This record gives sequence, structure tokens and C-alpha cells, in this order.
Amino acid sequence: MAGLTLVIGNKNYSSWSLRPWLLMKVNDIAFAEERIALYQPNSKDALLQRSPAGLVPVLKQDSLLIWDSLAIMEYLAEAFPAIHAWPTDKAARARARSISAEMHSGFSTLRQLMPMNCRKVAVHVDITEALAADIERVQDIWQDCLDCHDGPFLFNQFSIADAMYAPIVTRFKTYGVTPRNARIKRYQEQILSLHAMRQWYEDARAENEVIESSER
Amino acid sequence: MAGLTLVIGNKNYSSWSLRPWLLMKVNDIAFAEERIALYQPNSKDALLQRSPAGLVPVLKQDSLLIWDSLAIMEYLAEAFPAIHAWPTDKAARARARSISAEMHSGFSTLRQLMPMNCRKVAVHVDITEALAADIERVQDIWQDCLDCHDGPFLFNQFSIADAMYAPIVTRFKTYGVTPRNARIKRYQEQILSLHAMRQWYEDARAENEVIESSER
Ligand SMILES: N[C@@H](CCC(=O)N[C@@H](CS)C(=O)NCC(=O)O)C(=O)O
Ligand SMILES: N[C@@H](CCC(=O)N[C@@H](CS)C(=O)NCC(=O)O)C(=O)O
Repeated sequence: MAGLTLVIGNKNYSSWSLRPWLLMKVNDIAFAEERIALYQPNSKDALLQRSPAGLVPVLKQDSLLIWDSLAIMEYLAEAFPAIHAWPTDKAARARARSISAEMHSGFSTLRQLMPMNCRKVAVHVDITEALAADIERVQDIWQDCLDCHDGPFLFNQFSIADAMYAPIVTRFKTYGVTPRNARIKRYQEQILSLHAMRQWYEDARAENEVIESSER
Repeated sequence: MAGLTLVIGNKNYSSWSLRPWLLMKVNDIAFAEERIALYQPNSKDALLQRSPAGLVPVLKQDSLLIWDSLAIMEYLAEAFPAIHAWPTDKAARARARSISAEMHSGFSTLRQLMPMNCRKVAVHVDITEALAADIERVQDIWQDCLDCHDGPFLFNQFSIADAMYAPIVTRFKTYGVTPRNARIKRYQEQILSLHAMRQWYEDARAENEVIESSER
């Protein structure tokens, strides 16, 4: 199989980039990384040269170009059947896809009011009613999964569902969202203590661009 | 295989409901239909009784519950391998998933300023810069697919990608968006002339609820 290249944005800010990056790192899938600093004068041109949607992440393999984080992870699930991309049990897989697609198209309030910003902690944000609802829904989703499986991840082993929610874990850390209970707290710690997540944070701290619109 | 039930919203307004409904109808998959009129006094309770996300569509099969239109269609792709849910060619499938996931998480301006409203035609909407960009991007996506395949659909035979974009076809009709060229026009006509789409429109016309927030 030819080499994979993943084009990503700033590690500090690019929540969508984190997802496929994490799935590949956790599963030791080798890939080249190409970083484009976002919201700089030439960023949009650089993005449009690499992807028709003008957004990161993008996965390249030979002449193949896959854009959008969820499509990339479905591609990886097919290309690497040996990894636990989706749960093998049919009912668990249906649930994993439901919560992943729900995250993909929803949670706009949480995304907007709590932009990913790995370097920061204890940032204050006013919790509006809509934001509180998003925060509760995320924890409901986690709780439902953790109640059904032994953990440590949403479907026992790390899966695409965890990759989809990893940017939320970082946001809850950045904005000091108190986990509802010890089980949820343990899940968040589990994600944050992944070797790959530590590396992502380290790389984020080494970046020097500041995107003002993502600073609260 | 046990019977399928699809819970949907108002046919006139519920763009997300149309997607899996259309995929099943086009492929002659039998299912029971349960309709919940949205934004009525008791709608939210009815939704929350049927789905943890409190949104339609929802697919039920025995004890299985799949919510979110894209997750439902991935489920159907696996449950009915004989249908052309995704293209069989790997590169085409990667592209089909990319444009489907792009639609799933994007186009917020188009969604907001041009809510689905099947009963109406020639509704005036001011074309802002962001809206124009969404309209152009949709047509770029269609053009790229139609240039690569013989049609009549985005990947020759009808697929999930067409189901994802069908609500946009109805919006372009409702808000009088002029297709860029004859090829795009033919694609739109192809979608609108599907037997299942005609049935959806007929059912939408027979509904009597009016959702003010979706009327321009
Ligand atoms: N649905 C896309 C969304 C990707 C997205 O919005 N990426 C942001 C960065 S996290 C981006 O590229 N922004 C650059 C821009 O808007 O110019 C995905 O899942 O990959
Ligand atoms: N990501 C979901 C979105 C579903 C969605 O937003 N559905 C709307 C109707 S089209 C809904 O149920 N709205 C009712 C409400 O918000 O109370 C999907 O693809 O199924």
C-alpha cells in the first residue's frame, strides 16, 4: 500500500484535524504529516491547493484524496480491517456510528463558544442554556456507552467514536467543565493520557501562531 | 431480518428525514413509516421518547435504534449489501463519502437561509456572499462527479451521496436557484423525477402544519 499523507491545521486549534491523526497514531499507522497554519494570509490558497473543500484534514494516498475527518476515518476502517476502527458487534457499531454522526453534524453551540485551544486551561466561558444542553448531551452519550461496556473507551477498545469526541475532551479541559461523575472523569483522563494525545499537546505548545478568534 | 421502522418529521420541512427515506424507497426496502410533526407543543417529548438525540430521522429494527441520517444510511449499506449504497470502486467510494460527510457537517448558511420547504416555489431570498459560496460549492461537487461518471446520478447509479444532496435539490427548486449549466439541470431533474421523490412531494402537499420559522 502506498504511503499516506495527512494534511492538518494547527495542532493547538484544529479540532477536526485531531480526529484522524489520533486514530492513526493510536493504531500505529504510518503516515507523513503536512501542517498548514490556519487563518494566516496565505492559508486559504494553501488549503484550496490541497482540497476541493478548502478545509483540513485531508488524507492523500497516491492519486486518492479524501477530505473530511469522518470520511477519512471510514476510509481507514476499510483500508485497515485489522484495527478496531468500529466495534465488530453490529449493535455497538450502529451506536458508534450514530454518536459519531451526531457529533459530526451537531453541537454547533459547543463548537462556537468553546473553540479548541489545547494550550489553555481554566478559561472562563459563560454557560448559556444552549451550551449547557450540549455539555449535558455529550456526557449522556459517554455515560450510555460506558455503562454498556467495560471501558476504558466508549466501546472498550479505542474506536472512531473516541476520535470523534477527543476534541471535546480537550475543550472540557480548556474551559474547566466539571465531569458529572467519576466514571466520566476517568474516561477523559484515559483519552488525555494516550501517548498520542500527549504528543499532540506537546506539538501544540511548540506552535507559535495565535488565532485571535479562538481565544476567549 | 426483522421489520424496519423509520421515524421521520414533516415531509414538507424535514430535510434530514428525506435522506434515508429516499435511499430505502429507491431501493425497494420495505419499512414502516412513523411521522412526528415537528415544532408542535408536544413534538420534543415525542422525539425524546423515540431517540436519545431528540431528533429525526431514527431507524428502528428490533431493539436496535440508529439515529442520525448518515449513520442510518451506513447501517443500511451494511444490512443490504446488494443495493448500490456506496460505489463499489474504492476511489469513487472515498469521494462519495467525502462529499457526503462534507454535506453532513457543513453548508450551515445554505441550511439556515434556505430551509427545506417542498410546497413552495420561486421564494425570494437575498443571496449573501456566504450563501453564494455554498451554492457554488454544491454545484462544484455535482460537476466534479458528473464529469467523472456517465450519470444519471453522481456515481452512475443512485447512491447515499445522491440521498445526501436531494434536500439541496429541493431547496434550489424552492428558492429558484438557476443551475450553472445543462448538465447540472439534468441532474436536478433526474432527482426530482424519481418516483419516490414525487411521492415525497405529494405527501408534503397533503400535510397541513405550517412551521413559521421555515417560511421565508
Ligand atoms: N467537515 C470537515 C470540517 C473541517 C474544518 O472545518 N476544518 C477547519 C479547521 S479545524 C478548517 O480547515 N478551517 C479553515 C478555513 O475555514 O479556512 C471535517 O470533518 O474535516
Ligand atoms: N444530524 C441529524 C440531524 C437531524 C435533525 O436536525 N433533525 C431535525 C428535523 S430535519 C429535527 O429533528 N428537529 C427537531 C427539533 O430540533 O426539535 C441527522 O442527520 O439525522
